[in-house]
Amino acid sequence: MMRPTPPDVLPLRHLLTTDGLSRPQILSILDLAESFLPVGARAVKKVPLLRGKTVVNLFFEPSTRTRMTFELAAKRLSADVLNLDVAHSSTRKGETLLDTLRNLEAMQMDMLVVRHAESGAADFFARHAAPHVSVLNAGDGRHAHPTQALLDMFTIRRHKADFTALTVVIVGDVAHSRVARSQIHALRILGVPDIRVVAPRTLLPVDIETLGVRVVPHLETALRDCDVVITLRLQRERMQGTFLPSEGEYFRHYGLDAARLALARPDALVMHPGPINRNVEIASAVADGPQSVILEQVTNGIAVRMAVMAQVLGRAPGQESAA
Amino acid sequence: MMRPTPPDVLPLRHLLTTDGLSRPQILSILDLAESFLPVGARAVKKVPLLRGKTVVNLFFEPSTRTRMTFELAAKRLSADVLNLDVAHSSTRKGETLLDTLRNLEAMQMDMLVVRHAESGAADFFARHAAPHVSVLNAGDGRHAHPTQALLDMFTIRRHKADFTALTVVIVGDVAHSRVARSQIHALRILGVPDIRVVAPRTLLPVDIETLGVRVVPHLETALRDCDVVITLRLQRERMQGTFLPSEGEYFRHYGLDAARLALARPDALVMHPGPINRNVEIASAVADGPQSVILEQVTNGIAVRMAVMAQVLGRAPGQESAA
Amino acid sequence: MMRPTPPDVLPLRHLLTTDGLSRPQILSILDLAESFLPVGARAVKKVPLLRGKTVVNLFFEPSTRTRMTFELAAKRLSADVLNLDVAHSSTRKGETLLDTLRNLEAMQMDMLVVRHAESGAADFFARHAAPHVSVLNAGDGRHAHPTQALLDMFTIRRHKADFTALTVVIVGDVAHSRVARSQIHALRILGVPDIRVVAPRTLLPVDIETLGVRVVPHLETALRDCDVVITLRLQRERMQGTFLPSEGEYFRHYGLDAARLALARPDALVMHPGPINRNVEIASAVADGPQSVILEQVTNGIAVRMAVMAQVLGRAPGQESAA
Repeated sequence: MMRPTPPDVLPLRHLLTTDGLSRPQILSILDLAESFLPVGARAVKKVPLLRGKTVVNLFFEPSTRTRMTFELAAKRLSADVLNLDVAHSSTRKGETLLDTLRNLEAMQMDMLVVRHAESGAADFFARHAAPHVSVLNAGDGRHAHPTQALLDMFTIRRHKADFTALTVVIVGDVAHSRVARSQIHALRILGVPDIRVVAPRTLLPVDIETLGVRVVPHLETALRDCDVVITLRLQRERMQGTFLPSEGEYFRHYGLDAARLALARPDALVMHPGPINRNVEIASAVADGPQSVILEQVTNGIAVRMAVMAQVLGRAPGQESAA
Repeated sequence: MMRPTPPDVLPLRHLLTTDGLSRPQILSILDLAESFLPVGARAVKKVPLLRGKTVVNLFFEPSTRTRMTFELAAKRLSADVLNLDVAHSSTRKGETLLDTLRNLEAMQMDMLVVRHAESGAADFFARHAAPHVSVLNAGDGRHAHPTQALLDMFTIRRHKADFTALTVVIVGDVAHSRVARSQIHALRILGVPDIRVVAPRTLLPVDIETLGVRVVPHLETALRDCDVVITLRLQRERMQGTFLPSEGEYFRHYGLDAARLALARPDALVMHPGPINRNVEIASAVADGPQSVILEQVTNGIAVRMAVMAQVLGRAPGQESAA
Repeated sequence: MMRPTPPDVLPLRHLLTTDGLSRPQILSILDLAESFLPVGARAVKKVPLLRGKTVVNLFFEPSTRTRMTFELAAKRLSADVLNLDVAHSSTRKGETLLDTLRNLEAMQMDMLVVRHAESGAADFFARHAAPHVSVLNAGDGRHAHPTQALLDMFTIRRHKADFTALTVVIVGDVAHSRVARSQIHALRILGVPDIRVVAPRTLLPVDIETLGVRVVPHLETALRDCDVVITLRLQRERMQGTFLPSEGEYFRHYGLDAARLALARPDALVMHPGPINRNVEIASAVADGPQSVILEQVTNGIAVRMAVMAQVLGRAPGQESAA
């Protein structure tokens, strides 16, 4: 007699946030990504898995880099990709989000990759999507950027055997960072016992400790004996008013340089979601140094996005998690 | 002894307007579209019919939505697609339309999908195109938008058995609508005996009755016992000066709401070329109601564009209609 | 015993400039292009040579026409193509060129097609590129535009048997023309003994004769008995200040009209890199006349770019010229 698959290992239908994912769900994506990693190194960087599927990059907020990684992942899976730059589209003519969704569904799109400046946009699409459509969140406001967090977990796992023995430091503009939120959820789910957050007081959300992290005032204290340092991009374009005295001042207090990195374990990983501001968040020597896995993150990002796409479109109808 | 195929059933080389098409020509496209409709519902939404053909979307007037439908149709036929946004191209550098055409021909394009703010642009390309190049009109000025009209005919035929027994109402901004013109020609060719046009006097071309329609001053009178109601988009961005007192005023006189729709036959179809302005041309409840086929139109639009592309590129050289 | 292939016939890894190429290197590309020319005339305009390769069009300076020719060449070789319009990308956010390169490498791109307003940009990318990445220069500042020069050589060779017997005239805005520089190098390498340059004094670089050409003050003198006339585009958008009294004045002195062309050999070729300014650089009657090969150049451009792409990506690792 077959027992039904428990919901926490069922393949995802959408990927909107890392918050609420189960450990087996995350691990199943990382395992699948492991199998896609060699594709990018082959002479023919292509597998026929999603041939004849249609993926739309629906970018309400421009981000060439992120759009490229999704486009590349989809093309390496042999899907057809359409780029819809919504800044120049009919939403400008006053069409509602729901009408945009209904129209894309009517064109029989299989997957919407949604980027939006407002939190909750991808959730909105997922909540209203027809059964044959999957939604991937490619970044919404300050809320979530789940594929970035998953590629970070993937990168950590390739270097560190056991999440439950790790100390991870996240340093920088936590307040404006959907990346940080998604990382914290994923790290917690995977059992990381010690997550330390360091940020200027003006860039630190008041409720951040409710997510299960520890706020540490000084970077030096935080770095001591840690296994992973995640530096965040200073979201200059997203800040309004004056949160920071100057970039030089920021680097003096929160920039990761060689002297500070020496406080971490000798084999500590240095990570950054990119694009980096050299000598603002991170010293050039550290970004390019032997402990940096910043470019590995980029490579892994393609494999992880291929895995997410393959999983959400590969599921049997009705055979999916509610998440 | 073989008799030559009469010209009115020969496959089209270009599609520029519905004006002058023969009934068999329209029906052959609708029949072909019928065969493509299931492709969009399959797991692999792709047929190899146009593999190795090159299609250019040559958009002098931006229209993301329309561009996407042609791009999707071409990709589902396995063609290669290039998007040429001419606003940022060498025509800006003063190149003539003819030189643009000659260059695209020299690159061995097979099909140009042309969108232009001026009437006659697609005709110009077709008149001068080399024998191996087909031109599709994706909307030119106030003149024609033939694929939109054909997808509307396709949608009507899927619901109504006999065109020669239909009453069709077209309501809205007829003056600025290439869609309305193309629809009227197609409906007449298919034998629709009663086409009623309703519009504010300022949005009604003086010569519209010469096309074989009847102008009816009040929407209520026009709707009585009709089988199809086609609402037109209020082309706000194309209107200059003040044709209309206000959107609210427009809706009060020409908006399709539930009370007015009740005057039509109970099985009357509600159509709109999209994107809709909710509660301007059409009440939300009607747009989303059981008689609305607005989203079916979108789905059918892909199949119809696939059919047109397959027909114009599938013809044997020299074996085509002059149209 | 196998002798190592001499470096001057080894396939190129990058194509940055025609300066310094060997005669066998140029001829090997032209021969390969000859084999690709029929592909564009076939029903299925596609060969599977670069299937699963990823090509990025990295355009820091917009040029729809040039971008299309590379995109088309890559697609006809079955490569995946991503268009990266860098004006709207993270370089705007202050990322360095080197970081852009490292990120594209990490995404496992195989080829970067680089267009940049500054001389030396493509060289920079090539100098720093990882071993698996090839760089093609699609035009950098006033420096070089090598694929344009190669397609010109290809076009000349299809009409003239022997480069070493030719007289070639280059007329126009030599000062701002990367095309002219690349042509002069290529013509010299192929052994053209007599290259004559004609330009207004303000559009003539002082050191131009060091490239092995002869400056001739009057177009009439230069044209006498020549075999090829290359007219250059008047780079109006690139000129600052007033180099020229007026377009009419320019045409009166340097425009190629029928009377002047009659001074050349009766079978002299008329060439232009496009897009042409009719009746500025060249009379309409001459551009469209029987001696013009301007549209052939466009067709040949696709074949030559396919050849360059096939050669740089087809080379065995380590088996390449240093150039």
